[in-house]
Amino acid sequence: MDVVEDLKPVVTGLEKPFVIGLDLGGTNSVFGIVDQRGQVLATNSIKTQNYKTVDDFVDAGVEALKPIVAKVGGISQIRAMGIGAPNGNFYRGTIEFAPNLAWGHDGVVPLADMFSKKLNIPVGLTNDANAAAVGEMQYGVARGMKDFIMITLGTGVGSGIVINGQMVYGSDGFAGELGHVTMVRGKDGRSCGCGRTGCLEAYCSATGVARSAREFLKESDEPSLLRDMKPEKITSLDVSIAAGRGDKLAKRVYEFTGEMLGKACADFAAFSSPEAFIFFGGLTKAGDLLMEPIIRSYKENALEIFKDKPKFLVSSLDDAAAAVLGASAIGWEL
Amino acid sequence: MDVVEDLKPVVTGLEKPFVIGLDLGGTNSVFGIVDQRGQVLATNSIKTQNYKTVDDFVDAGVEALKPIVAKVGGISQIRAMGIGAPNGNFYRGTIEFAPNLAWGHDGVVPLADMFSKKLNIPVGLTNDANAAAVGEMQYGVARGMKDFIMITLGTGVGSGIVINGQMVYGSDGFAGELGHVTMVRGKDGRSCGCGRTGCLEAYCSATGVARSAREFLKESDEPSLLRDMKPEKITSLDVSIAAGRGDKLAKRVYEFTGEMLGKACADFAAFSSPEAFIFFGGLTKAGDLLMEPIIRSYKENALEIFKDKPKFLVSSLDDAAAAVLGASAIGWEL
Repeated sequence: MDVVEDLKPVVTGLEKPFVIGLDLGGTNSVFGIVDQRGQVLATNSIKTQNYKTVDDFVDAGVEALKPIVAKVGGISQIRAMGIGAPNGNFYRGTIEFAPNLAWGHDGVVPLADMFSKKLNIPVGLTNDANAAAVGEMQYGVARGMKDFIMITLGTGVGSGIVINGQMVYGSDGFAGELGHVTMVRGKDGRSCGCGRTGCLEAYCSATGVARSAREFLKESDEPSLLRDMKPEKITSLDVSIAAGRGDKLAKRVYEFTGEMLGKACADFAAFSSPEAFIFFGGLTKAGDLLMEPIIRSYKENALEIFKDKPKFLVSSLDDAAAAVLGASAIGWEL
Repeated sequence: MDVVEDLKPVVTGLEKPFVIGLDLGGTNSVFGIVDQRGQVLATNSIKTQNYKTVDDFVDAGVEALKPIVAKVGGISQIRAMGIGAPNGNFYRGTIEFAPNLAWGHDGVVPLADMFSKKLNIPVGLTNDANAAAVGEMQYGVARGMKDFIMITLGTGVGSGIVINGQMVYGSDGFAGELGHVTMVRGKDGRSCGCGRTGCLEAYCSATGVARSAREFLKESDEPSLLRDMKPEKITSLDVSIAAGRGDKLAKRVYEFTGEMLGKACADFAAFSSPEAFIFFGGLTKAGDLLMEPIIRSYKENALEIFKDKPKFLVSSLDDAAAAVLGASAIGWEL
């Protein structure tokens, strides 16, 4: 167990001053106690895959919470709990057919209700990208914004959309799957994990970037630092490092990725005309290598009235804490 | 002047029971008095282009309103006024750089304020597609729906997006330009009136349908009723009539149009997961010729979780009254 307590909590008035955030991943489940300013006061974690049933998982979670809840004065100080989880449905508080969870892959798990009954506090649940967007609005660069689109660039491409100051969950709780808009139509589109072809995710996720690098290497004899590696071992991090060293082919991979994202954002602007696009996740570490072509391509492709309006920002939330912060932010919305 | 008064108004309680709707088009400006059930109790119209300045236009509008307002008991019975206008900005109540308006093409016209000052009632203004969506929610097939997308298929392709029961205006008041998402990327994309290429509007508007017909005629020697016409004279109505008579080429034009719309809707579902897509405008008169390929293509292209969810509906509002009804509905939202 890893309990952090180096920060002074912010207590405002008589309201319960803290929320619990649970970042539920395929490998680890991280619990954190968070105050209104987004300080993570204490964390603890369990191994998601160690539990065969959801009952065992919830019991272990409640045990893991006890010491960190005690640190902030007990459950009476906790206003609510927010969970960010794969395939999370906000309306129903459920995880639905999540392929990477031993106890969640073949059904609908009412996880929010289960924690709520054990802890006697309100519990909300949504997917990780939506949680990241709410976190950004509560604690990050989106504070004060009413219309923005968060795009998470990790193993996949996720999104959280905020319109009129509200998360967009859609009619079924599953809105905001912008990783699966079709960017390349027809037979040339790359196959995507969703079973379709040409999705944004197939090009602009970490795996999409590695795939672009392999394609670019195959298409020419251009020298590249990446040729020293086995093609199947290349990761987006390798591409980023090579590009940072001036490798032209690696740079072109980021150009290509950014151009695709810029085109996608041009379409998204036609939908909700956001004040900002906010990028989050591993790929953003490439910095201007990625952001510069995104912005250039957006301006080349956007409708005239939207061209110079949106900001293009990178999440300001600390990477290690961001997922827990995002999840916790759902707690303030309940 | 054309005053209609054959309907019995619905009066509920002590509230002001009526709103004014103004459908402001490039040629005609139609005013209507509407009750809460969407009955148009009286209408009157003026020629938009007869007025050189916006002051003259507003003065003429106020004059045209006098007799129809008198018919329903005077201005004390009117709660508000809603205006549907090209390039309308809801946040600012302005018409901005509208190319088809003699007094509105080169600047920002504060039309809502101008009418509000003359009439002493609240006045709201938005673009025609947004007005159609609010009208559908107030009086039509979208009653009770909180998440839907209205797609207007006229000379252009417009859209009005409703999320969480609210119109989506975006950060600048211009959200919902779904006619200008890019459907065909690269050099093969058709040129669009917006100056870009490959937009949905270039394929699925009335002019887009006529253009498809001309392309299809040129690409083959296939017999078609449309070969009896001069290519440049062909309209979407001609294509619809030919298709209705079993003309194969004309049918393929509607197939092609519907398929493109279905693909676009698949992307829109990934954005806001609406309960329904509602189609409005001249092209919808083609009925199943258009709707059947839209639905089929949507199912072929949508992400698995969205495949069987949305309804595909055609607007239930009477064509002649729809634009005034849509505009009037803005009045109830103020």
